[in-house]
Amino acid sequence: MLEYIFNPSSVAIIGASRDPSKTGYVILNNIIKAGFKGKLYPINPKADEILGLKAYPSIESVPDQVDLAIIIVPAPIVPSIIEQCNKKGVKGIVIISGGFSETGAEGEKLEKAIVEIIKKSKIRLIGPNCQGINNPHVGLCASWPLITAKGPIAVISQSGTVGATMECWASDEKVGISKFVALGNKADVNEIDLIEAFSEDKDTKVISLYLEGVSDGKKFMEIAKKVTKKKPIVILKGGRTKLGAKAVMSHTRSLAGKDEVYDAAFKQTGVLRVDEIEELYDVSKALALLKLPKGNKVLIITSSGGSGILSVDLCEKLGIALPELPKKIKEALKEKLPPYCIISNPIDLTGDATAERYGIVIQECANAPEIDAFFTIFGDPIVGAAEVIKESMEKTEKPIVVAFLGGGEVEKSEKEKMQSYGIPVFPTPERGIKALNALIKYSRILSKH
Amino acid sequence: MLEYIFNPSSVAIIGASRDPSKTGYVILNNIIKAGFKGKLYPINPKADEILGLKAYPSIESVPDQVDLAIIIVPAPIVPSIIEQCNKKGVKGIVIISGGFSETGAEGEKLEKAIVEIIKKSKIRLIGPNCQGINNPHVGLCASWPLITAKGPIAVISQSGTVGATMECWASDEKVGISKFVALGNKADVNEIDLIEAFSEDKDTKVISLYLEGVSDGKKFMEIAKKVTKKKPIVILKGGRTKLGAKAVMSHTRSLAGKDEVYDAAFKQTGVLRVDEIEELYDVSKALALLKLPKGNKVLIITSSGGSGILSVDLCEKLGIALPELPKKIKEALKEKLPPYCIISNPIDLTGDATAERYGIVIQECANAPEIDAFFTIFGDPIVGAAEVIKESMEKTEKPIVVAFLGGGEVEKSEKEKMQSYGIPVFPTPERGIKALNALIKYSRILSKH
Repeated sequence: MLEYIFNPSSVAIIGASRDPSKTGYVILNNIIKAGFKGKLYPINPKADEILGLKAYPSIESVPDQVDLAIIIVPAPIVPSIIEQCNKKGVKGIVIISGGFSETGAEGEKLEKAIVEIIKKSKIRLIGPNCQGINNPHVGLCASWPLITAKGPIAVISQSGTVGATMECWASDEKVGISKFVALGNKADVNEIDLIEAFSEDKDTKVISLYLEGVSDGKKFMEIAKKVTKKKPIVILKGGRTKLGAKAVMSHTRSLAGKDEVYDAAFKQTGVLRVDEIEELYDVSKALALLKLPKGNKVLIITSSGGSGILSVDLCEKLGIALPELPKKIKEALKEKLPPYCIISNPIDLTGDATAERYGIVIQECANAPEIDAFFTIFGDPIVGAAEVIKESMEKTEKPIVVAFLGGGEVEKSEKEKMQSYGIPVFPTPERGIKALNALIKYSRILSKH
Repeated sequence: MLEYIFNPSSVAIIGASRDPSKTGYVILNNIIKAGFKGKLYPINPKADEILGLKAYPSIESVPDQVDLAIIIVPAPIVPSIIEQCNKKGVKGIVIISGGFSETGAEGEKLEKAIVEIIKKSKIRLIGPNCQGINNPHVGLCASWPLITAKGPIAVISQSGTVGATMECWASDEKVGISKFVALGNKADVNEIDLIEAFSEDKDTKVISLYLEGVSDGKKFMEIAKKVTKKKPIVILKGGRTKLGAKAVMSHTRSLAGKDEVYDAAFKQTGVLRVDEIEELYDVSKALALLKLPKGNKVLIITSSGGSGILSVDLCEKLGIALPELPKKIKEALKEKLPPYCIISNPIDLTGDATAERYGIVIQECANAPEIDAFFTIFGDPIVGAAEVIKESMEKTEKPIVVAFLGGGEVEKSEKEKMQSYGIPVFPTPERGIKALNALIKYSRILSKH
């Protein structure tokens, strides 16, 4: 039934507004601007037309079938609106409005009233108290800001902002998203339902979550265990500390739970846990776009000695192996590279490195069993980096993780090119190595199954 | 004497080239493009003119006094060039060329020969084997990429790339730099000389370093202790692990040393240590642009519950206090803010937060002794954020640290405005809190003195 929420033929926006400062305007405007091809019905008893579309006084007065209703009206009247939706045969509902269980006893009653109606119906409900949903693949941006970049990452977030941040970055870097869901109070649909749904979604390669609590521990573990065999799940968990858990209570009324319990549960089920929002994005991006390594043996190729050293430090800390190259490869490289290049691990191509040198090294090690993955650091304005990495990726089954930094305008244009080729670029060695570590970890998780 | 290196009246580029692929072209071109006002003398025996400037066959044939020589010629002829510079009365030299002690015994001899000449002269030397220097305040970009943004951060780096990355970010965000120095092999001038020099530099507010080893431990501690009483020193140290230290040896021949020793030395001398390149930048940016808090008591103001929770988790981990507001302020805020705002710490202004609400909270707490600093999270497309923060900064002596995320195009334009006002913006709650923590730490260091 979630299909009607993410891929509806017709959508009613209940509480659509002509005032650009209102959420009811923003949502309708974003759906229009995102290019939604289905039917759109603004519902507002005080308007005949909104944003060029005929408006209806109520959902009941819409002449056609409505698959999905987006609700942005004051909390007290939401239960009666849901009743009307039910009568109309609406299949999916997203309640953006706040004022429910997150506000206290009064709101809790309202939320219970909604759940009562939903339970007796076939309707599936997202929210209330959420930042909506987005499916760029059909132009359904029932959320904000306006995000239209299609891509492989499904974002499920108990915080609208954290989810929107993932969307913004994925849009800026042309990675794109497959789905976005702000969970809100999880009155009906929760993260477990969505993980299950997105595990079957052909547009989704990675499922990325910000969570403050899990709705049903046992069920979560059962589903997560199953899904991680097919697709990676990456989770950032808020409320790890005592004070954090207290803040969670007043945000979404979730029980943050003991952090050690989550840690153990994530490990057991093959969920990749991350510590920061940027890491949630970096790891998701890497898993969505790169091949998986067969093991943890990495060759670092760099033009910057310092960046190589920072990478080595982090590899040692994370347990990533940095093997010496076999003699035969070393000798071949010595012949093909300038004599001042340092043929070790890292391979230091030095400050005057050309893009071609990276290609030479990767080609030479493309099939070497001693190496499972490449970490290439472009630490200068190196022209042609994008082309060389693109070509190299066709010549090896091993993943190539790219960090680009210190390259000024050349860096910007090469990064843009790489992004247009679907090659993820990381802004520092540290962020690149953490992303690579996630590839290694997920590869291990898959091989255990 | 370092004054002649960073603020010369005349500069000779020995090894200037007409070939755009050569460093000797890039350096001359960047100095011209950066708008250097002093005299420029390209030295190249095979050219009459380079980039529109009259070229000279040797430094001796230059008709005027030369303050600074930038050397980009093959290592074997560098000693004789230095001799010529000495005869000419050159006061400062930067050797970009590699091929010295970093390459083995042969190169070591060459470097020793250079040091011999320098020791007997009044010349101060930076390098060899380095990415040059930059002083945007006089348009002297004798380095790459081209960076012209003037600002308060002095960057000293044992890695050209790590330093250039700091320059690039500071340029992109209009923070700017005061000086950039790539240390290279530190044959003469080392990080200690530069820390001392920049402690007196009126354009420098923060001294930021990437180091792989310290040249003279005792002297370093003596100088660092003195300087941190006046200006903050922030250090990222490469080669923390065993393998990292090994890589340091082959990069700059530095002895990375035991990490615990560095840790203790940094703590004793009031140096702020960071773990990643981005943190080096974030912390430097905060210290350069923000006021210092009197203590560690922070009020978090957010439109995003989730971002608030992630901030709380990190505050607890770092030992930042999040006091409850006094009853009187709470009551005042309850009157002035919508009833659904959560008046706690974090203060959650909720998803429909306007910029004005942030202003109301800051004004109410501007003089409250219970609070030492504000952490404001704009977690939505909040129009007017820049103006409100600018005005608020004028009304309180407490620092206001800003994180902005999930705001799409509005975020980009508000961020640009804040940057034009000299207000630093952090892209995530985590990076903002780490920067705020550095402000707290440095304030503590100052109060101990």
